[in-house]
Amino acid sequence: MTPDPLNRLVAQLAKLPGIGEKTAQRLAFHILRAPGEYAMDLSQAIREVKEKVHLCGRCFSLTDTHLCGFCQDQRRDDRVVCVVESFADLMALERTREFKGRYHVLHGVLSPLDGVGPEQLRIKELLERLGDGRVEEIILATNPDVEGEATALYLTRLLKPAGIRVSRIAQGLPMGGDLEYADQATLAKALSARRDL
Amino acid sequence: MTPDPLNRLVAQLAKLPGIGEKTAQRLAFHILRAPGEYAMDLSQAIREVKEKVHLCGRCFSLTDTHLCGFCQDQRRDDRVVCVVESFADLMALERTREFKGRYHVLHGVLSPLDGVGPEQLRIKELLERLGDGRVEEIILATNPDVEGEATALYLTRLLKPAGIRVSRIAQGLPMGGDLEYADQATLAKALSARRDL
Repeated sequence: MTPDPLNRLVAQLAKLPGIGEKTAQRLAFHILRAPGEYAMDLSQAIREVKEKVHLCGRCFSLTDTHLCGFCQDQRRDDRVVCVVESFADLMALERTREFKGRYHVLHGVLSPLDGVGPEQLRIKELLERLGDGRVEEIILATNPDVEGEATALYLTRLLKPAGIRVSRIAQGLPMGGDLEYADQATLAKALSARRDL
Repeated sequence: MTPDPLNRLVAQLAKLPGIGEKTAQRLAFHILRAPGEYAMDLSQAIREVKEKVHLCGRCFSLTDTHLCGFCQDQRRDDRVVCVVESFADLMALERTREFKGRYHVLHGVLSPLDGVGPEQLRIKELLERLGDGRVEEIILATNPDVEGEATALYLTRLLKPAGIRVSRIAQGLPMGGDLEYADQATLAKALSARRDL
């Protein structure tokens, strides 16, 4: 009995991650009640993100120009490349304002069970980037989970023979963390990777 | 440094109720990664819901035709009209499959502090519907909260003199509820509205 366009919108919204049927309905009602220009702006923004945003030709981050802002920025250091799994991870690193080198986005991690091998990731393109000999260090910033560690290990074995310095982001207790509540693996890492003061 | 179309989409999504900046980003990435047709379908669905869905000319529920399905359905009982605050409430009632009369959606409740008086609600239109004398009972199904109760009281005073039976949905303990955890107001209602067995 509900109008078809409303049903269709609810169905489409319910496909979004973390949005169930009830939430989709609430969002649909909100869109319906909101001023007309909001719905048009949202509709336009969704279409444009798909039409205009693509992968950077060099580092495979997201951009609406040929090369992304990170690759174009003359002030960034060509000698250090930070390898991440996803653009979201890149943005998280960027928010620290600590890293001034270049990025390379793999778009996934090695996961044989899901059928993701080295060919599915942007690893070939990473090796091509090293061709000009300007890169001196690769920072592996994949997630500290099973797949991320495996991917970092794979890349290390691939890159080390090329004579490039390969590093891994540190693992240990997070800032503000609590030894009492830390898991064993994290504590073990924190111990073994202890630094002299 | 993130591409403008992505920023615009995140900004638009973050305006939705219950969607914060982080969730908006997650949704935007999902839309970007999803197959092209999903983004187009979603974009289209948002535009169409705004273009095609409007208020029913008689009961003010939502429809994409002149009269909604509830008003057009010949099998429904013209003699009983159920007054609700919103289309979402109508749908909740409809899911019970217990009510076979007509509906009337007020689109709000009396709330003087928010500047909502009788003129802002579809009360005039409700009175007009009673003109042909076919309606015998009005069921007031506004929410059992302060504004809903006030609106029900206001409508009762307005409709009773017209000689129409006016009823209010029952208040009491919800099914599966627990006396121990029920609030005082609900328990008091459940006591005073007790039924003889």
